[in-house]
Amino acid sequence: MSGEEGLCLFEPAGRSFKLLLKVLKVYAVEKSPYQEIIFAELDGFGKALIIDNFIQSTEADEALYHELLVHPAMVLHPKPSRVLIIGGGEGATLREVLKHNTVKEAVMVDIDPVVVEFSKKYLEHMHQGSFNDPRSRVFIMDGLKYVAEAPDKYFDVAIMDLTDPYAGEAAKPLYSEGFYRSVKRILGDNGVLVTQAGSSYFYTSEYDYVAGNIRRVFKYMAEYNIWIPSFGLNVNFIIASDTLDPRSITPGDFDKRLMERGVKTRFINGGRYNGLLMLGVLKPLH
Amino acid sequence: MSGEEGLCLFEPAGRSFKLLLKVLKVYAVEKSPYQEIIFAELDGFGKALIIDNFIQSTEADEALYHELLVHPAMVLHPKPSRVLIIGGGEGATLREVLKHNTVKEAVMVDIDPVVVEFSKKYLEHMHQGSFNDPRSRVFIMDGLKYVAEAPDKYFDVAIMDLTDPYAGEAAKPLYSEGFYRSVKRILGDNGVLVTQAGSSYFYTSEYDYVAGNIRRVFKYMAEYNIWIPSFGLNVNFIIASDTLDPRSITPGDFDKRLMERGVKTRFINGGRYNGLLMLGVLKPLH
Amino acid sequence: MSGEEGLCLFEPAGRSFKLLLKVLKVYAVEKSPYQEIIFAELDGFGKALIIDNFIQSTEADEALYHELLVHPAMVLHPKPSRVLIIGGGEGATLREVLKHNTVKEAVMVDIDPVVVEFSKKYLEHMHQGSFNDPRSRVFIMDGLKYVAEAPDKYFDVAIMDLTDPYAGEAAKPLYSEGFYRSVKRILGDNGVLVTQAGSSYFYTSEYDYVAGNIRRVFKYMAEYNIWIPSFGLNVNFIIASDTLDPRSITPGDFDKRLMERGVKTRFINGGRYNGLLMLGVLKPLH
Amino acid sequence: MSGEEGLCLFEPAGRSFKLLLKVLKVYAVEKSPYQEIIFAELDGFGKALIIDNFIQSTEADEALYHELLVHPAMVLHPKPSRVLIIGGGEGATLREVLKHNTVKEAVMVDIDPVVVEFSKKYLEHMHQGSFNDPRSRVFIMDGLKYVAEAPDKYFDVAIMDLTDPYAGEAAKPLYSEGFYRSVKRILGDNGVLVTQAGSSYFYTSEYDYVAGNIRRVFKYMAEYNIWIPSFGLNVNFIIASDTLDPRSITPGDFDKRLMERGVKTRFINGGRYNGLLMLGVLKPLH
Repeated sequence: MSGEEGLCLFEPAGRSFKLLLKVLKVYAVEKSPYQEIIFAELDGFGKALIIDNFIQSTEADEALYHELLVHPAMVLHPKPSRVLIIGGGEGATLREVLKHNTVKEAVMVDIDPVVVEFSKKYLEHMHQGSFNDPRSRVFIMDGLKYVAEAPDKYFDVAIMDLTDPYAGEAAKPLYSEGFYRSVKRILGDNGVLVTQAGSSYFYTSEYDYVAGNIRRVFKYMAEYNIWIPSFGLNVNFIIASDTLDPRSITPGDFDKRLMERGVKTRFINGGRYNGLLMLGVLKPLH
Repeated sequence: MSGEEGLCLFEPAGRSFKLLLKVLKVYAVEKSPYQEIIFAELDGFGKALIIDNFIQSTEADEALYHELLVHPAMVLHPKPSRVLIIGGGEGATLREVLKHNTVKEAVMVDIDPVVVEFSKKYLEHMHQGSFNDPRSRVFIMDGLKYVAEAPDKYFDVAIMDLTDPYAGEAAKPLYSEGFYRSVKRILGDNGVLVTQAGSSYFYTSEYDYVAGNIRRVFKYMAEYNIWIPSFGLNVNFIIASDTLDPRSITPGDFDKRLMERGVKTRFINGGRYNGLLMLGVLKPLH
Repeated sequence: MSGEEGLCLFEPAGRSFKLLLKVLKVYAVEKSPYQEIIFAELDGFGKALIIDNFIQSTEADEALYHELLVHPAMVLHPKPSRVLIIGGGEGATLREVLKHNTVKEAVMVDIDPVVVEFSKKYLEHMHQGSFNDPRSRVFIMDGLKYVAEAPDKYFDVAIMDLTDPYAGEAAKPLYSEGFYRSVKRILGDNGVLVTQAGSSYFYTSEYDYVAGNIRRVFKYMAEYNIWIPSFGLNVNFIIASDTLDPRSITPGDFDKRLMERGVKTRFINGGRYNGLLMLGVLKPLH
Repeated sequence: MSGEEGLCLFEPAGRSFKLLLKVLKVYAVEKSPYQEIIFAELDGFGKALIIDNFIQSTEADEALYHELLVHPAMVLHPKPSRVLIIGGGEGATLREVLKHNTVKEAVMVDIDPVVVEFSKKYLEHMHQGSFNDPRSRVFIMDGLKYVAEAPDKYFDVAIMDLTDPYAGEAAKPLYSEGFYRSVKRILGDNGVLVTQAGSSYFYTSEYDYVAGNIRRVFKYMAEYNIWIPSFGLNVNFIIASDTLDPRSITPGDFDKRLMERGVKTRFINGGRYNGLLMLGVLKPLH
């Protein structure tokens, strides 16, 4: 019986199946009080960050996730200056935010000091120095607490780069209606919220719970999703605002804003963003 | 060590990883001169047809594939009456074609008699009786030969429901420029071709080969793709015509044509078709 | 990523690992009120019976197990005439017992009618007609109840062909001290008990529990074990009697008795039996 | 689908199946010109050395292998003073050899400098300082060359701790008849050879080739085998000499020699050695 031999990674994808990936090299394994963190080289996907057995990002497809999380929300805001990121320990969300030359302050709040140190030490290809950008401020604390204590109307854009709503207890409060109300309080007049929201295909009711909470708090919302190859599933994103309709940006405006702010992307552009909005949410058909 | 036990299916997905699915029941295993055919129940996906270890369709997500293969091409043609399907042994493509009440004759050509008999015997949930529709004619023969011998300008729509362009030698000639020229000969004035074209993400050069061949033969072409959960990859489709631009159908026209022809779908509609066109082709970013 | 594709079997082996076997063909899958039964062809091992994801026997190595279970106990008794088998649904233990021409009555008691019917229908290569031998009597009932109701001193040899002592609740009472006392009551003056006792290497405390129970009930006992390749572990056997010392049979006597009774074996002989006794029980060394 | 998640090791076991082991921690991964070396913690087996995807030794069961390789040959010789080890990079064979207080010089010859450095650096629990014993001399060179150049009749015992005879080209010449003749030349009058010889169950013809070569070169030989849990197969050993019959040592003599030389073992003793000799070689029965 030829075939797989040696180190592999079994990654759960949805409730129904798993991905089996060949591990070419293990660079580091560390445990934090919150999670187990692995940095490894995966066949076909390159360097990968794996937390509690779930791939968080790989060289091959991290841009799909991070660009879709960051740029629609940033573009929707006419001039995002102060940006809040909750989670995002590997620094790639911060990296995308800092591409917008309108940004004066990017606050990243992650609960796990080990993840952040791990990223600084090993994931240069992910954060690309963004932790050292003078506009960056990193807080190691509970996002819930940070938002509760932040001043009113301080931020222009709030980006939730969290573990999945169904992946353990830690992140759950950060998907609640109450939390979204808190975030709204600290957003300015044209404030925009965006969150990743897990897989609507495999975790439909959990996704609907998140979408419902956001819908009750913000006047406008839009949903889009993309397949992330190394996750083996689709990831959904929800963008919301009380004043700005995420469906109102034309492809041309989208591309123009990116260009004006000096943002270069590998995947997202105005046409694709509009296409994804038209595609909407993917749920099981049976 | 708890966890997976008992029967499982390892399904290759791209060159880089595999899916591991739990097999709840194996209904039938047969070998044909061309391939090994399994009909099984998969955890989370329901009844599934598996050929040479690749899932061909599952109850949970077959509509995604078959609707996207069939309806855009059928809708693009103003009045598809005679339709050719190459491949499509399980009868689900035929089922979708026959939903259009404009169809007078649906010809299905599959090389493997065992697959077709297998489908008739076990896959009622897939073909839903379409093999017995008086408009259906099934030929067991090489699609290459059928097309070579078919009369000029006979068909309105030609649908290629084939194994992937990189999955063995059998299907390869059916993705060649020469074959597309043959198909063009047997298509009528408003003739439309559509083919599935495998995964542009994992098999980019093979996909580009197919797209290039079609581009050289037809005046208009459009590309779209969707993630199929049980495949673990995205499937691409290419639609082409010499007279009709696949990008010219508005969402409203798309939905109107489906309604006029009595076609009910589970996933595809005009908005989603247009969204998918805007999304285009998904390729690795690194 | 080349390698395993298609149907496979994950078989738990001990607490620490699993075997992954390639499934070439699935002949039958049935569920009884007690268990799930699969009859399949496994690469390298041939036809296999799989119950609740554990391989029970394969063509390649079933003789190892069944010969070691049956013949030492049968040989120890000077003239086994009435033999009781508890479990043993596939009929291979019965087959080995009937090889001894001293046997006048072989009673097999299995709780699961589905397993026995399944074996009669599919496992001819295992039972080899032994169910139809006029000396065979098969009862579908709880072994506990059968033993409780059987007459005193009726049997010469009692053979326990059970699921592992740690494999669910059903078989547990059949490894208890109380049950061994019941068996002793229905054994004749030179009565011999033998039981399989699972893997002493991976389930040491469970094995010790069984061995301790037998030691408290019978005057003589001996332990031996063998690696069964398709199980991925060693299987232990315990043979016991109140009058006959299992260690007293010389290799020559062992072989002589087999020959006198017309028994041909593929693996076991007097030398190997004595070697296995000297090897004893295999437990973790750390 | 619950179950295995995260890092795992697929280890080939025979041609017919694989072991799947849970990897708890990866301490080091290095590549040498000859092989890939992994040092990891495996669930249920503890610290493990893995070379080219094959487990070489684990804390839980390495003593089974190393004691059976070393002590029968050492005990067979009346007073082993100079001992040659070919292979054995992790230092555990050396460790067992040095336990015999008759040993004045233990020469270890391994072709791969990386394995030896790796062991010194990481595998303290295996070599237990034996590399620093003043009686040890380690040569990094081809065993074939070392033997060809060694003086006549120099060694008392020669121990072949090699990769399997079917595991790549590197070790093959070290199982040839010609090589055994070379070894015989450098062995003293009561010289003893022992080699591991892979799995007779899964690689019967390869095993028979090795056994045949030894039989043609030495007057006496004996074969024994043991199941190594973490290998998923049985490992065979062949012991040979021109003057000493390996079958002539009684259990009492075996134990006496170990005691006189101050050797403490965890598994092997005279009774077990004799039992294993009686058990002999395990081959498929069908």
